[in-house]
Amino acid sequence: MSRFHEPQHADFHRLNASIGFDRRLWPQDVAQSRAHARMLAACGIVAEADRDALLAGLDAVEHELREGAFAFAPDDEDIHMAIERRLTEIAGPVAGRLHTARSRNDQVVTDLMMYARERCAHAREAIAALMAALLARAEEHADWPMPGYTHLQRAQPVYLGHHLLAYFWMLARDRARFAFAEAQAGSLPLGAGALAGVNFDTDRRMVADELGFATVAANSIDAVSGRDFILDYLNAAATCSTHLSRLGAELVLWSSAEFHFCELPDSWSAGSSIMPQKKNPDAAELLRAKAPRVVGHLAAFHGVMHALPLTYNKDLQEDKEHMFDAVDTLELTLAGATGMVTGVRFNRERMAEAASDEMLAATDVADLLVRLDVPFREAHGVVAGLVRTALDSDRTLSQLTEQELAAHSETLAAHGAQFHEVLEQSSWLESKVSEGGTSSARLGEQLAAARTVLDESAGA
Amino acid sequence: MSRFHEPQHADFHRLNASIGFDRRLWPQDVAQSRAHARMLAACGIVAEADRDALLAGLDAVEHELREGAFAFAPDDEDIHMAIERRLTEIAGPVAGRLHTARSRNDQVVTDLMMYARERCAHAREAIAALMAALLARAEEHADWPMPGYTHLQRAQPVYLGHHLLAYFWMLARDRARFAFAEAQAGSLPLGAGALAGVNFDTDRRMVADELGFATVAANSIDAVSGRDFILDYLNAAATCSTHLSRLGAELVLWSSAEFHFCELPDSWSAGSSIMPQKKNPDAAELLRAKAPRVVGHLAAFHGVMHALPLTYNKDLQEDKEHMFDAVDTLELTLAGATGMVTGVRFNRERMAEAASDEMLAATDVADLLVRLDVPFREAHGVVAGLVRTALDSDRTLSQLTEQELAAHSETLAAHGAQFHEVLEQSSWLESKVSEGGTSSARLGEQLAAARTVLDESAGA
Amino acid sequence: MSRFHEPQHADFHRLNASIGFDRRLWPQDVAQSRAHARMLAACGIVAEADRDALLAGLDAVEHELREGAFAFAPDDEDIHMAIERRLTEIAGPVAGRLHTARSRNDQVVTDLMMYARERCAHAREAIAALMAALLARAEEHADWPMPGYTHLQRAQPVYLGHHLLAYFWMLARDRARFAFAEAQAGSLPLGAGALAGVNFDTDRRMVADELGFATVAANSIDAVSGRDFILDYLNAAATCSTHLSRLGAELVLWSSAEFHFCELPDSWSAGSSIMPQKKNPDAAELLRAKAPRVVGHLAAFHGVMHALPLTYNKDLQEDKEHMFDAVDTLELTLAGATGMVTGVRFNRERMAEAASDEMLAATDVADLLVRLDVPFREAHGVVAGLVRTALDSDRTLSQLTEQELAAHSETLAAHGAQFHEVLEQSSWLESKVSEGGTSSARLGEQLAAARTVLDESAGA
Amino acid sequence: MSRFHEPQHADFHRLNASIGFDRRLWPQDVAQSRAHARMLAACGIVAEADRDALLAGLDAVEHELREGAFAFAPDDEDIHMAIERRLTEIAGPVAGRLHTARSRNDQVVTDLMMYARERCAHAREAIAALMAALLARAEEHADWPMPGYTHLQRAQPVYLGHHLLAYFWMLARDRARFAFAEAQAGSLPLGAGALAGVNFDTDRRMVADELGFATVAANSIDAVSGRDFILDYLNAAATCSTHLSRLGAELVLWSSAEFHFCELPDSWSAGSSIMPQKKNPDAAELLRAKAPRVVGHLAAFHGVMHALPLTYNKDLQEDKEHMFDAVDTLELTLAGATGMVTGVRFNRERMAEAASDEMLAATDVADLLVRLDVPFREAHGVVAGLVRTALDSDRTLSQLTEQELAAHSETLAAHGAQFHEVLEQSSWLESKVSEGGTSSARLGEQLAAARTVLDESAGA
Repeated sequence: MSRFHEPQHADFHRLNASIGFDRRLWPQDVAQSRAHARMLAACGIVAEADRDALLAGLDAVEHELREGAFAFAPDDEDIHMAIERRLTEIAGPVAGRLHTARSRNDQVVTDLMMYARERCAHAREAIAALMAALLARAEEHADWPMPGYTHLQRAQPVYLGHHLLAYFWMLARDRARFAFAEAQAGSLPLGAGALAGVNFDTDRRMVADELGFATVAANSIDAVSGRDFILDYLNAAATCSTHLSRLGAELVLWSSAEFHFCELPDSWSAGSSIMPQKKNPDAAELLRAKAPRVVGHLAAFHGVMHALPLTYNKDLQEDKEHMFDAVDTLELTLAGATGMVTGVRFNRERMAEAASDEMLAATDVADLLVRLDVPFREAHGVVAGLVRTALDSDRTLSQLTEQELAAHSETLAAHGAQFHEVLEQSSWLESKVSEGGTSSARLGEQLAAARTVLDESAGA
Repeated sequence: MSRFHEPQHADFHRLNASIGFDRRLWPQDVAQSRAHARMLAACGIVAEADRDALLAGLDAVEHELREGAFAFAPDDEDIHMAIERRLTEIAGPVAGRLHTARSRNDQVVTDLMMYARERCAHAREAIAALMAALLARAEEHADWPMPGYTHLQRAQPVYLGHHLLAYFWMLARDRARFAFAEAQAGSLPLGAGALAGVNFDTDRRMVADELGFATVAANSIDAVSGRDFILDYLNAAATCSTHLSRLGAELVLWSSAEFHFCELPDSWSAGSSIMPQKKNPDAAELLRAKAPRVVGHLAAFHGVMHALPLTYNKDLQEDKEHMFDAVDTLELTLAGATGMVTGVRFNRERMAEAASDEMLAATDVADLLVRLDVPFREAHGVVAGLVRTALDSDRTLSQLTEQELAAHSETLAAHGAQFHEVLEQSSWLESKVSEGGTSSARLGEQLAAARTVLDESAGA
Repeated sequence: MSRFHEPQHADFHRLNASIGFDRRLWPQDVAQSRAHARMLAACGIVAEADRDALLAGLDAVEHELREGAFAFAPDDEDIHMAIERRLTEIAGPVAGRLHTARSRNDQVVTDLMMYARERCAHAREAIAALMAALLARAEEHADWPMPGYTHLQRAQPVYLGHHLLAYFWMLARDRARFAFAEAQAGSLPLGAGALAGVNFDTDRRMVADELGFATVAANSIDAVSGRDFILDYLNAAATCSTHLSRLGAELVLWSSAEFHFCELPDSWSAGSSIMPQKKNPDAAELLRAKAPRVVGHLAAFHGVMHALPLTYNKDLQEDKEHMFDAVDTLELTLAGATGMVTGVRFNRERMAEAASDEMLAATDVADLLVRLDVPFREAHGVVAGLVRTALDSDRTLSQLTEQELAAHSETLAAHGAQFHEVLEQSSWLESKVSEGGTSSARLGEQLAAARTVLDESAGA
Repeated sequence: MSRFHEPQHADFHRLNASIGFDRRLWPQDVAQSRAHARMLAACGIVAEADRDALLAGLDAVEHELREGAFAFAPDDEDIHMAIERRLTEIAGPVAGRLHTARSRNDQVVTDLMMYARERCAHAREAIAALMAALLARAEEHADWPMPGYTHLQRAQPVYLGHHLLAYFWMLARDRARFAFAEAQAGSLPLGAGALAGVNFDTDRRMVADELGFATVAANSIDAVSGRDFILDYLNAAATCSTHLSRLGAELVLWSSAEFHFCELPDSWSAGSSIMPQKKNPDAAELLRAKAPRVVGHLAAFHGVMHALPLTYNKDLQEDKEHMFDAVDTLELTLAGATGMVTGVRFNRERMAEAASDEMLAATDVADLLVRLDVPFREAHGVVAGLVRTALDSDRTLSQLTEQELAAHSETLAAHGAQFHEVLEQSSWLESKVSEGGTSSARLGEQLAAARTVLDESAGA
């Protein structure tokens, strides 16, 4: 019997029902119910025979769900009620004992925490796959010069392998974020009941062990009111997506005719409905476009939690759609990034040509002056003057005359040979000998360090 | 000399200059320059006498800044240039040697990482202070009954101490987030130069040790392109602010005449310009109102990073204002929360009266039936029927007749004494014996655990 | 034949395909194609017989779509390609003529603009329905006193009808926002081609007329690059949702036992899985919870547009999911709000009791002093002192003695009768005689004005 | 006298005070007080002599504020209290009469609405200036070919003037948004009092007329509770900023060595602290970077309004900082955009060279086949095949042999002369004859239309 006289309004049902999206939680819900049933029996709260009937019934329900044979009913408001309803049909009144010492409030959040832990683990694996792809390509292209950019202006040459590894380290941090998020989803809410704990001395540690939780939530109110772990997942996903958006944007840029640094494989490109010649980097553009979506979920769910009174409120139901779409989006874009990084072909000649722009040696000339005991700030001014003289007369630095050099710096004129030596390309890259710099030796160290990071995590 | 022919447009200067907000980084900038000068000398890149001149000059600059005697010039675009300009005035041309093997790109991000680590540490302390305040109030009110709410409907009674501790555990997680963010700001960028490393074999580990960085950034491009650590701070601040918004909202709610569960001290309340009787919880409302602001900074800075090509771009200058306002907002609201939690007076009588609503025992009656071997789902239906019968006739559950009881459940009617026993208040609280529940024994465990958590961190 | 050698990667297809969500645009796509075919024939670009074949084919396709008989193929990337593919199957090679002088770029945005206009019109109607519901309830409760709150503290009494009308005027502005958004979606993009216009002198005004566009886009690049009209819809929806969140939050608050100002109908309430007594305002909570979601879509789509180079980029495909979910959310919550406003029962007695709190007359006492020629600021101080004296001795204002009155204000003591007269309830409401105030006469004017606003729009 | 026993806590004061940012509202506050004083006298609520004293006092206060001679006191919580405090010092007790029939609640929102109207008007002017700059540059470059891009791939050639006008029309819509926002701030809140109206029959229309409001707010509760007009401003600013971010991003892209389509003037460029050769488009990057900030304010302020109970709450104080920073940011970036658009030099040769890529004629070849009665979809396939054949053998389309043409299309081979004619550049641009297309005739129409739009608004 219900305490209500009237049935739900159809619009209320549409607004309220979550079965359309929460059905993906069925594996967690079944696993949780199994653990709960076993614990209830172990604590003497339900009989062993009842436990066995519940477990058998849950097996049958799980089988239907796994096989796609589960028939959802119009009144199934959420996956939890759907499973309980079906369990009752299969197992009879004993099914009614399963909800002993459990509320939908702690049940729902427990399912979702299990799901979050699973997706964090998946994200870490998918990130590792992308890191491995980046590392492989970095090793292949460890000695391909390209211009490094600041402000999208050519600044100093670097090796392509060095540039690719920049993404490797971003992703390594993303992996740490997902590990943090996973740990934050490691405290079992089940047993908190509606909000105050339950009227039975349950064994929450037993359930936690079976379901892989490291500990149990210390406070029943916090357990059903909080959704930090969702925010932690969304935060990790948002930062990772923002990183992927930078990668996607660079692939788009480098695929342009003007840059022409790379070409995506046909299998990751799209044509045009009207322009027969077009080969478009749609997937790379979508890497770029999806980050605001994930950030949107993060910000929106903060908005949902904002100012909410304790304990459980229906508002919390919004957690699932924000989380699920973020999961789907992230997992798809990580796969896309890995596919593109693996398949993209770089254009060695074009990159080298762009990197050979003599202006990129300006800092190196200034540093030559520093070695000749000119303070850096003064050296910088000297070279700026040379640059201006060259640009004003449409020449390169090496085309300046000895007189012009002397007019800007007697010191430099006196060391003209070294000046011209600096203006040869290879020295610009190989002189970046500081730790973490782009010189071959330093890049070699870095590649080795990256390999170690990856191997260690694979073993873990 | 400059490579440019024309001076900056006045509007460009206004748009571009950061001195208005980045001057707060002066302590970090001076400390960094000291460490850099020492390292340059140790590596033989500048002479020891020059190092000493630089250090003496930096002392003088720092003194001016600390005393408020530093005169900013109209052309000081940022704090770094201002300090270098003043150092040059004080120390002469040797000041020009300080920027050897350093770019503003790695300099700026190093300052900001030092700042971030400092504010993370401060946040953890301020959070601990609030946790201590909550724990103290929870201990004082460990046996004050109040209604627990779900959906803002009275659900089951809890002790006020239990409710207050829910915030304690939220904040404990916030502290973990700031510890994570602090660790993420622990990899020294300095030495990355503009983007490719520098033309000198510098000793980055020496600088890292002096400035308290755990390690050095592995990739020079990543070092100057990334701002994850800002996102990590903003994320921790956003989640903490969202928690504070819930606390603020509850203080507002409980201060209403209708709830009347608490009264804020005069020192944390405001009057009205027109209504002489008003005592308004302005500070609690601001706790509530500030969370979207911090979340806004988090989302906005993700937007700034979105799709940015590597390496440094001017867009990154936006990092500071988003970060600084988040820092100021969080630190002020944490102080406010601590002040209010410490000073608020709770209304024992009013809370107890609200908690004594007999309807809150409905679950307990259902659980009584469970103990009498009725499946929970069936028991729930029986009690729902009793509730409806009572409401329809404007009576309480204990006013139902034996006949009415029997009409809904023979079992219950047969155990009428137990039924009436359950409908007495104290049992509703004390029966929540599950781990993490509100019963006194469990709450006692929880208070002890909270005290341990706090003491351990104080020792750390 | 394709320009590509390899087929699409499966992950690329999953990332790229939009058919999962853009199929809802089929009515717009068919209508657009009809108009386009007619125009092509009118301009002599296709033969009349071909036009007729195209129209007949489109009729057949539309019939299948409407009846749910349309078989989507695995390769149908989007609804436009699906319809063209099916049209080709039905009508043969002539179908290939339909894409003459049209690109998917202008086709997609045209469909979406038609859809946006349709949903704006629907939103305006749904808002009008909610306004009508509010006005009806306001008329019914025009003379029910309740406390008005500032800072959630009782401030001054108002009539419930006055309070309900506050939402009426918010919604009237929301309607204006949707009218603005609708107008912004009134400039036909079709004919812009891929980006530069098309190689045929088409008649865009003819297409605009058939499809209900007020004008044609002036610039072909802008036409395919811009999505302002999506932002305009999302903005209108976000502000409206924020308004609904305030309404939802008040319904939750007023449904609490502590306020007890209203009770939602059973048909808009939910029970609890564990607590049989609970009647939860889930729908009202969801009104509250959905606003951040819509705001999230607005912010996210700004993020998508951020820094995008002209003209069309694949990123723009994100427009649809953000828009569609916002549409569905808004339409559902508007229906929910209307249902709840219509069905909620207010508690006259409880509201009146809360409104009769004598402290709410404090401003009126101050204004009495103003009429006795005391400057308001001084009068405010006098009454604040009376309030403090009363609170300190746990009495009401009317319980203060004549001596106490005199101690604070000789003037007030000299007009003790008027003082006590002010402290009678009805005067507090009826004295708010300023335009837009809560006095019955002013509220009557307002109800009439609201009726006029609603009637005018119904006629429009 | 105050109703409070204790002074404010220092942290509360820091959290609560708004004087740090709301002092910019002093012109509005003084103007409002003048109008209020005049109205009070006109309605007989204050004496004419008192009015004159108030007006004289306000003149004195305004003079101090305008001259920077106003001494703020430590206790000045906000600008309204500061002005009232100073007025009292200057005018004596009569100053206490000014707050008659006014509350800070309606006073604050009235000031802010006046400010919003003023900034909307300013934004419309600043946008018009940018539109004028764009139009002037478009006229100058009406016949400069450049490649149009989709997916950042060269797609079809357009004239630079056509491309620049795309921004013109975006901005025209932004102007309409600000006009809408301005109208939404046109309903006077003053007279709503704290929330319920005031105890005097004031003449709100008189005040509205003096302060330039079109109408008076119909409902006193709505008047003090709502901040839609802030959201409307923020929305207009966010969309405009997003447009500016696209312009900024294109300037950055076009300034790269790879594109080299333009060069920013020295006066809008920055150098590098380490690389003497660098000329960086910092201002253009900041145009790009500021949009997320304004969007952040929009989203954050939605968050503040979310779920707020009526009527005034302190949370609303957040309106000002979000608004003010958005105003400052928008006004600065609009000035920056105008400066850069005016000063940027385009590179005709480089653009023309990029536009002459023969592949950009692929659609035109397909359309040639359409004119020869081949269905477009079939023609598209023919040309895609030609493109593939050419790319596979590293040739251009015009280098294909007659046999190769025939292998793909007999029709095309039979019209070889026309095929080669299409492959000449000018036809690709001039054939875009549809309304709004890039052909010279259509672009001429568009320039004229743009001029008309601008002239009309200047006259308005």
